[in-house]
Amino acid sequence: MNELRLKVKMLGFQAGGKHIVIIDDEVAAKLDVRSLDRVVIRHNDREVVAIVNVAKFFPGDFIGLYDEVANILKIKEEDTVEVAPAGVPDSLLYIRRKLMGARLNAREIRKIVEDIVDGYISDVELTALVTALHYQHMSLEEALNFTKAMVETGEMLRLPSKIVLDKHSLGGVPGDKTSMIVVPIIASLGYIIPKTSSRAITSAAGTADRMEVLAPVSLSVEEMKEVVLKTNGCLVWGGALRLAPADDIIIRVEYPLGIDPFFIPSILAKKLAVGSTHVVLDIPTGRGAKVPTISEARNLAHDFIQLASRLGMKMEAAVTYGEQPIGHAIGPALEAREALITLMGKGPKDLIDKATSIAGILLEMAGNTNGRELALKALQSGKAEKKMREIIEAQGGDPNIKPDDIKVGDKTFTYYAETDGFVFWINNQALALIGKTAGAPKDKGAGIYVYVKLGEKVKAGDPLFTIYAESSVKLQAAEKIVDEMKPIAIGRGIKAKMLLEKIDTKPEKVVMLER
Amino acid sequence: MNELRLKVKMLGFQAGGKHIVIIDDEVAAKLDVRSLDRVVIRHNDREVVAIVNVAKFFPGDFIGLYDEVANILKIKEEDTVEVAPAGVPDSLLYIRRKLMGARLNAREIRKIVEDIVDGYISDVELTALVTALHYQHMSLEEALNFTKAMVETGEMLRLPSKIVLDKHSLGGVPGDKTSMIVVPIIASLGYIIPKTSSRAITSAAGTADRMEVLAPVSLSVEEMKEVVLKTNGCLVWGGALRLAPADDIIIRVEYPLGIDPFFIPSILAKKLAVGSTHVVLDIPTGRGAKVPTISEARNLAHDFIQLASRLGMKMEAAVTYGEQPIGHAIGPALEAREALITLMGKGPKDLIDKATSIAGILLEMAGNTNGRELALKALQSGKAEKKMREIIEAQGGDPNIKPDDIKVGDKTFTYYAETDGFVFWINNQALALIGKTAGAPKDKGAGIYVYVKLGEKVKAGDPLFTIYAESSVKLQAAEKIVDEMKPIAIGRGIKAKMLLEKIDTKPEKVVMLER
Repeated sequence: MNELRLKVKMLGFQAGGKHIVIIDDEVAAKLDVRSLDRVVIRHNDREVVAIVNVAKFFPGDFIGLYDEVANILKIKEEDTVEVAPAGVPDSLLYIRRKLMGARLNAREIRKIVEDIVDGYISDVELTALVTALHYQHMSLEEALNFTKAMVETGEMLRLPSKIVLDKHSLGGVPGDKTSMIVVPIIASLGYIIPKTSSRAITSAAGTADRMEVLAPVSLSVEEMKEVVLKTNGCLVWGGALRLAPADDIIIRVEYPLGIDPFFIPSILAKKLAVGSTHVVLDIPTGRGAKVPTISEARNLAHDFIQLASRLGMKMEAAVTYGEQPIGHAIGPALEAREALITLMGKGPKDLIDKATSIAGILLEMAGNTNGRELALKALQSGKAEKKMREIIEAQGGDPNIKPDDIKVGDKTFTYYAETDGFVFWINNQALALIGKTAGAPKDKGAGIYVYVKLGEKVKAGDPLFTIYAESSVKLQAAEKIVDEMKPIAIGRGIKAKMLLEKIDTKPEKVVMLER
Repeated sequence: MNELRLKVKMLGFQAGGKHIVIIDDEVAAKLDVRSLDRVVIRHNDREVVAIVNVAKFFPGDFIGLYDEVANILKIKEEDTVEVAPAGVPDSLLYIRRKLMGARLNAREIRKIVEDIVDGYISDVELTALVTALHYQHMSLEEALNFTKAMVETGEMLRLPSKIVLDKHSLGGVPGDKTSMIVVPIIASLGYIIPKTSSRAITSAAGTADRMEVLAPVSLSVEEMKEVVLKTNGCLVWGGALRLAPADDIIIRVEYPLGIDPFFIPSILAKKLAVGSTHVVLDIPTGRGAKVPTISEARNLAHDFIQLASRLGMKMEAAVTYGEQPIGHAIGPALEAREALITLMGKGPKDLIDKATSIAGILLEMAGNTNGRELALKALQSGKAEKKMREIIEAQGGDPNIKPDDIKVGDKTFTYYAETDGFVFWINNQALALIGKTAGAPKDKGAGIYVYVKLGEKVKAGDPLFTIYAESSVKLQAAEKIVDEMKPIAIGRGIKAKMLLEKIDTKPEKVVMLER
């Protein structure tokens, strides 16, 4: 009925993966569409449905196309297209139903996730879905279907192995290079462990940032597969892969809002997408960590384990001590160096304790007894180091790299204890902020080296930590943060052990996701 | 810290009033910002905060500016700006707090509404707020503060009168030209009634579309004031004014989602913005109307009256019969003609009944007794017609217009009863769709003339309704809808009276907004 012929104005950039077109408000009136309505656009034998953005002062006889739509139509500037109103997509009807309190079934969820991935859902609709799930909470059934749909709408890594081990940390603790020790231990013992990691967002380094100091991490799924087939393991950046891509789109709207209803499905989807069958979930716990108390860690673990079990994935959780950095080093290069030193037999006790505890749980899940001893032996014997060098080589790095080859920032400033006493408070957030301000993770050599651990006795004049930076300006800015935030306090001491608790509960009847 | 100098690429159109800029993903990484973070942009002595949209394949050293930001910076293509990350705006912190279940106070709500109007809130954040309020429901206090903030962040009409009357209909009934009779009645009796109306969205005509047949309706607040000062009344389009502009922005995200937590505050804000002191709320009720039952109408009325009272506005509600069109005519020109005929003394009974009932309530609210008789007298004496012609003239139309001067569509098709019987069902939605398909409201002469009323006796061969269109193609499309939807059914009869109930409850202690 209201079909119009419009000329194409190429906007020349992407719309974040979405199918969006721009039309003038008078054109919108002629088409009888409003912002966020859909139109169908035809050109020759091609057609595409897109979300309308109505803009004032857009040229009258034109339709503005972002790259996504332009690429599908194979079109160029000033070409003519036919534009007509399109109906409301089914996925939007399901989102509206969710807003009215309905539970979504598998088919509806699959359609919603498909349309999210294909760019047919606007930010407004996606945000409404995310907020609705924040308020209504997913049922176990919905969580299950969202997870499956997120996996199935992305690429998948298929490995010829019945057992695929994996680990995931909820993060939040500075300096946590545990994966860089666990992966080579597990791989050296003949098990498959295709580890994907993220880059830092609010921290000074993610595992992908750390590993990148030793080898390239931006691999494709095919390249990742090759590395794993060759070495049993890998340490790659998940962001370059299209594993469960719905998650990346959903996170974009969750992030400014500070809500995360897709938290558990997102993590499990990423693990399922690489074919993991046995996964240990590391939950760093304590003041200053993401999960402050053991009882909260337990609830979260039970939710994860229950959903994982419904998805056919065996999961156990390690509640770990998260009140201070792991090891001494924070920042990509400093941490890569510490990981390498640890694999070479000279690592800090807490890092060795944590890594062998987690590797041990994985080894026991895979049918071994005395997992922790097995892990420790693989580390102490040099098998894990050898395996790490194989992985580094397979990913395209230098297998003969020595700790001293790793360049760290040459602008440094060291802080010393002003009085005698015990280390009684280390502020994780402050350390992350100092590391970031010093330039990490972008400046790989930037970071912090912390000499002390909670509960340790120090004397006035003992070094507490050194800031590393690649530029003096950034070093000075980091020093300013130290003055403001005092990241380490000296006083009465406490003692810490790394593994607080191991949780391997069999799923219960209670739907724990209904938090 | 992360400040960058970027060249300006003018996008050349608006971003829906929002302060949005586009940068490439590599530029975003350098600035350490993500999509929906804020940046501050400086040029000479000007600066502006904007929401970041990260686009792939956007030229590297450039920042894309929509008109809103470009106008503030007074900038041109290829100029250089300084760009740096900006913190999280307070309004976003308040929205996050709301998502965690908090009640918002007056100051927080004011800041949120200001930032909505000024374009500092992204669609994602606005949608989260709207969805949060859909789930949590506004408290009476929050509704009060949102209403006030919506009024105060827009223009206001200030009239030198202690009593300002007004009416508002919740709509949903085709052919409801009641305002075009009520306004001149009230104005002719010496009371001020500055009526703003909307255009049709899902219907065949809004009051602004109808009135536009007789006179221009796109007036500024100043022009509207002039008309009211001259004639006591007006009938103008609200969309051209900047009265409570937050509402227009909020509706844009509510519309695709089918939720409307701002329903009551939005309507009251528009009334407060023109200074209304006594308002009658028309709630068309019945099957096929927006409010299906009288008990729902009562609840809604109480919510409105309670909030209005807290805002110092006297409100009464008229629950009116909404199961069939008002009068006979549907569509801008047909309705304008019927309104004019009614003012000239020859209108349909139900329209006269409804208009004088509502005018009567208003007159009694203003201190008169026998409001309905007063209204009827103003109509029958020709005073209301004379007043309407003054208003038409003041708004720039022809005061001597005769019903026959009003052109209606010359392509027509009439439907006849196939059997004897009573009119027992009229489908409002079907009539609206037929009218729209015939071309209304864009084609002013398009519409439907319905000859029969619910419960009337008809004989086989009696005309039921005529479709009017300005184009044969649209007429044929409308005929197709008739075949599919059968808008009028003949069978056993029922009788209808227009005013079902008058509600003037004094506010109760119960917080009725917590539905």
